[in-house]
Amino acid sequence: MKVGVFGTGMVGTAIGTRLVELGHEVRMGSRQAGNEKAEQWAESAGDRASSGDFADAASFGEIAFNCTAGEGSVDAVTSARDGLAGKVLLDVANTLDFSDGAPPAIVATDRDSLAEQIQRAAPETRVVKTLNTVSNDVMVDPARIPGDHVIFVSGDDQAAKRQAVELLGEFGWPEDRVIDLGDISTARGTETYVGLWLRLMGALDSTQFNIGLFRSD
Amino acid sequence: MKVGVFGTGMVGTAIGTRLVELGHEVRMGSRQAGNEKAEQWAESAGDRASSGDFADAASFGEIAFNCTAGEGSVDAVTSARDGLAGKVLLDVANTLDFSDGAPPAIVATDRDSLAEQIQRAAPETRVVKTLNTVSNDVMVDPARIPGDHVIFVSGDDQAAKRQAVELLGEFGWPEDRVIDLGDISTARGTETYVGLWLRLMGALDSTQFNIGLFRSD
Repeated sequence: MKVGVFGTGMVGTAIGTRLVELGHEVRMGSRQAGNEKAEQWAESAGDRASSGDFADAASFGEIAFNCTAGEGSVDAVTSARDGLAGKVLLDVANTLDFSDGAPPAIVATDRDSLAEQIQRAAPETRVVKTLNTVSNDVMVDPARIPGDHVIFVSGDDQAAKRQAVELLGEFGWPEDRVIDLGDISTARGTETYVGLWLRLMGALDSTQFNIGLFRSD
Repeated sequence: MKVGVFGTGMVGTAIGTRLVELGHEVRMGSRQAGNEKAEQWAESAGDRASSGDFADAASFGEIAFNCTAGEGSVDAVTSARDGLAGKVLLDVANTLDFSDGAPPAIVATDRDSLAEQIQRAAPETRVVKTLNTVSNDVMVDPARIPGDHVIFVSGDDQAAKRQAVELLGEFGWPEDRVIDLGDISTARGTETYVGLWLRLMGALDSTQFNIGLFRSD
C-alpha cells in the first residue's frame, strides 16, 4: 500500500519506518519539499521511502497519517486537502502547550478536539483518531509492553475505522484490543486522557506503559 | 473512626453506607440540616449513621469525604472550612456539565482542577483527590471488576495520601493498585480522564469497568 505520513518528528519517523518495514511505500510530508529531516529519513529508510511536501504525501498515499505536532496539524491538512479527498486519514497527534515548560499542558478540552478540527478542515476526508494515547515506540510495537493493554479508534466512518483496525493489526494490535469509542467527537476523550498519561509518565518515570480495560460481564 | 461525608447523592450514599458497614461512624452533611435524603439515609444505615449540615459533618469527622456534585463542592467546603482545618479531605467529585444533555461535558481542563479549587478554598485542609475515576459502586467494592485495575491519589501532603491509601485498602483496593500521581495538580489528569470514562461507558454500555496499568520493566 502507498501511505502518506505527515510530520518529520519522532512520531512520523516511527510510523514511517514501521510502514516501510511492513512492505508499504511511504512518502513523508513536511511543510516544504526538501525538508532535511524528511530527506535524511527517506535516504536511510530505503527504496520504499520518499519525501515531499504535505500535498505530495497526500496525493501519493492511498491512506495517510497525521503525525505533525498538533498546533500545526490543521494547516498541514488544509494545505493537502485536495490530495486527501475521499481518503482515510489516521490522526495520531496531540496538541501540547510547552509555554510553561515540561510537562506540557493539554490544549484539547471536552468541548472540542484536534481530530474534529481536522475533520472540519477536510470534510471530504475520513478522519480516524487513534494511537495518540501511547508513546511513538509503543504505537508501532505494542508488544514492548506485556499484557492486554488497549488502543482506541474514533471516527464518523465505519469503513475508515475498519481500515484503521487492519493497519493497527499490522503494527501488532490485535483486533480485540482496539476499542471503537464512537464518532469523531469521542477523540475528546483520548486527547484529554493524555493529561493523565503525562502524569503517569511523571509518576513512573517512563513512557513504556499503557492502560488496559477491565470489566465485569 | 468518625467520618464526615459531604453529599446525599449516589456517591455520598455509597461511601457513607460502606464506611458504616466497616464499623466507622458517619455523619452525612448537606447544605442545610434536616435534608430529607440525609435523614432517610441516617435512619436506614443504623446507629453509627447521623446527618447534619456540611459544617456539622466536618466538625464530627476526623476525616471527611467530598461527595457533592462538583459544581457545589467549593461552596460546601467553604461553609465547612473551620471544621475541616488540619484534617484530611478525600475529594471524589467530578464537575459535569449536563446543559447539552447526556453524556455530560467535563468542566475540568488541564489548566485547573476541582481538587485544586477545593485546596485553595480550604488551605488548612489536606486535600487528596481519589476514586473519581470509577463509578460509585466500584469505588467502595473494587472486586466487582475482576483483575488488577487501579485507582489514583493526588495530593500535596504525603501523610494525608498515606491515610487515603489505608482507607482505600478498607474499601478493597490493595496498596499495589493505588497509584500516587504526585501533588494536587495531578488531579487534572484524573478529572479530565473522566471524559474518556464517559465515552467508554457509552461504547461498553456499562459503568462496570475500570482501567489497569501495564508497563515494561
